[in-house]
Amino acid sequence: MKKKILILGGDGYLGWPTAMYLSKKGYRVAVLDNFNKRKWEAEVEATPLIPVKSLRERIRAWKEVSGEDIAVYIGDLTNERFVVKVFDKFKPDSIIHYAEQPSAPFSMKGNEKAVETQVNNVVGTLNVIFAMKRSCPDAHLVKLGTMGEYGTPNIDIEEGWIDIEHKGRKDRVIFPKKPISFYHLSKVHDSNNLEFACRVWGIRVTDLNQGVVYGVETEETKLDTRLSTSFHYDDIFGTALNRFCAQAVAGVPITPYGKGTQKRAFLNILDTLQCVELSLLNPAERGEFRVFNQFTESFTINELAERVKNDAQKLGISASIEHIENPRKEEEDHYYNPMHSKLIDLGLKPNKLSDVLVDGMLKKIIENKNFINKDVISPRVKWEQK
Amino acid sequence: MKKKILILGGDGYLGWPTAMYLSKKGYRVAVLDNFNKRKWEAEVEATPLIPVKSLRERIRAWKEVSGEDIAVYIGDLTNERFVVKVFDKFKPDSIIHYAEQPSAPFSMKGNEKAVETQVNNVVGTLNVIFAMKRSCPDAHLVKLGTMGEYGTPNIDIEEGWIDIEHKGRKDRVIFPKKPISFYHLSKVHDSNNLEFACRVWGIRVTDLNQGVVYGVETEETKLDTRLSTSFHYDDIFGTALNRFCAQAVAGVPITPYGKGTQKRAFLNILDTLQCVELSLLNPAERGEFRVFNQFTESFTINELAERVKNDAQKLGISASIEHIENPRKEEEDHYYNPMHSKLIDLGLKPNKLSDVLVDGMLKKIIENKNFINKDVISPRVKWEQK
Repeated sequence: MKKKILILGGDGYLGWPTAMYLSKKGYRVAVLDNFNKRKWEAEVEATPLIPVKSLRERIRAWKEVSGEDIAVYIGDLTNERFVVKVFDKFKPDSIIHYAEQPSAPFSMKGNEKAVETQVNNVVGTLNVIFAMKRSCPDAHLVKLGTMGEYGTPNIDIEEGWIDIEHKGRKDRVIFPKKPISFYHLSKVHDSNNLEFACRVWGIRVTDLNQGVVYGVETEETKLDTRLSTSFHYDDIFGTALNRFCAQAVAGVPITPYGKGTQKRAFLNILDTLQCVELSLLNPAERGEFRVFNQFTESFTINELAERVKNDAQKLGISASIEHIENPRKEEEDHYYNPMHSKLIDLGLKPNKLSDVLVDGMLKKIIENKNFINKDVISPRVKWEQK
Repeated sequence: MKKKILILGGDGYLGWPTAMYLSKKGYRVAVLDNFNKRKWEAEVEATPLIPVKSLRERIRAWKEVSGEDIAVYIGDLTNERFVVKVFDKFKPDSIIHYAEQPSAPFSMKGNEKAVETQVNNVVGTLNVIFAMKRSCPDAHLVKLGTMGEYGTPNIDIEEGWIDIEHKGRKDRVIFPKKPISFYHLSKVHDSNNLEFACRVWGIRVTDLNQGVVYGVETEETKLDTRLSTSFHYDDIFGTALNRFCAQAVAGVPITPYGKGTQKRAFLNILDTLQCVELSLLNPAERGEFRVFNQFTESFTINELAERVKNDAQKLGISASIEHIENPRKEEEDHYYNPMHSKLIDLGLKPNKLSDVLVDGMLKKIIENKNFINKDVISPRVKWEQK
């Protein structure tokens, strides 16, 4: 019997490649989406660089290419009745939950977007755990969190939990968080709700505190142009590396925010697929709230900028670096030492940034150079609006 | 110029007594409420024991009795536009925020109530801090949290923050939480959102992690029967002490949940009023997220039961104690040593439980004995529904 995997947010940057990857690996895959992300992209003019087909078109193309079926549920996780119906019908063995508003700047645009982000993310996850309790209490939830939940504490960042000693007594507690946006806070709220549900109801959860994902292609997206996933280089949904690559190719300066000494954790999209499957193959115990720090390398923003500049040079592009005022309120000089051994212990074989930057990213962006919209790369959202 | 205080949830058990107390002390008071609590009471048959007049009737009675005006805003904090209008108009110097769904069992009734609790509490608080940033960035928010956010860790509970040393490095972090219901979690989410807003926007917040409040009367409610506040003895909105008193008076057994060895923190309603005013008089700094543990005494549930039994005896009532299955999932044997010196340092003079139990509570309940509904005292909500 094929294991049944329900992918929440299956139309997204990671959700769609995960669906194909697991479909090819022999899982029975269903995807769920409400297309909120496409609505948000339209709101902030964040058109993906590489054209993305509709979800059903991609599912049909995948069937042609692979012979495999992917089931699809269209609806909103904040609708309790819809979630109950999907879970009662599909009865997943595992759920992979990517279905959240994923942008820090989007959540900082103002009151309405902060509320929309937290309600969408927190309520969706609450409805999922209630549906699990009801329909499939033995299923395993693999939930995407973020390394940004931790912020930049002055101590080593452990994987979700920390043993502390205080006034001669000891306890094991959830690692204290210091998130840097209402988006990151929504993931902290989720983590707290999930830890409680594991403790009280005995469900199984793996919370993947993921670094910044980069990469345009996977083995499966390469099979057919209709199978592409989204690539964002704008200020709202594009991450620093993507923006820098687009800036280099577009012939405008690469713009680190502030001093650029901020350090962050990164991973290749290929490693997201590996990590998610490793989590499925090694599920959390009943009642266990398990946390993995899911990344492979750490870089400062300046290191990213330099690397893009140098690799662009190899392709004959002469890029410049120009620091701009930091629109975020974040520490620029800070200690950063996050642990990340648990997924390695399960067998993760990291793909390094150096392996894909030139061939995998810059060349792909150059192919689509004419579609770059230079007006949406500079920051449009400030953390401290006046 | 009188200081302007906006009391959110001004129709509630604590909100209304706080409004009168501060009005008499010379503050200019406005109350805001949406009467959600009255709706929830109706839903779960939690009629307050002592009749509570409408908010406007109480405001008129207060004017008659004291000569003081209390302004009133009727509307919902989850409505961003309403909140902006109230803040722009009243321009408070301080805001006291009681306006949340306050019951753990209510939040555990099922999916719908868990979502309603978290959305109501989290979105209301988000809208308040955005309105503060816009209309009164120098104002001081006094926010009611709960000691239940901490749960029962195996280490001393500090006041909101803890200095930790880990692998030879140090940091000061938010005290790790282990809340025991979706209601308590909503307060944790609030605290995390508030800490972020202080850090990034420089607003002033005092988070009062309050113990279980008891007491029926304050100096002001005693002035006129029309000024009474609500007293709940039901399983949803009534706390253990209230339930035990009502059970003793009604002639049914006092029923601690489980072993009754759970320890909790308590305070007299008179001390809530003192603590809130002490916070107003000593506001948090700009950018400071300050946390006080607001309680005066700790008791096990068994100690409460014994005390009610013994004090009822003094009034000629012979009560029995009967342990029942614990409907909650909580630790019954646990370490519990929460700090609570900061409000004492500011001048808090505690009123003890022993001072008010017989005269202040049991006698008042005896007066209203005929109104006790015995059907709503036993637990109707289990943490692990099948």
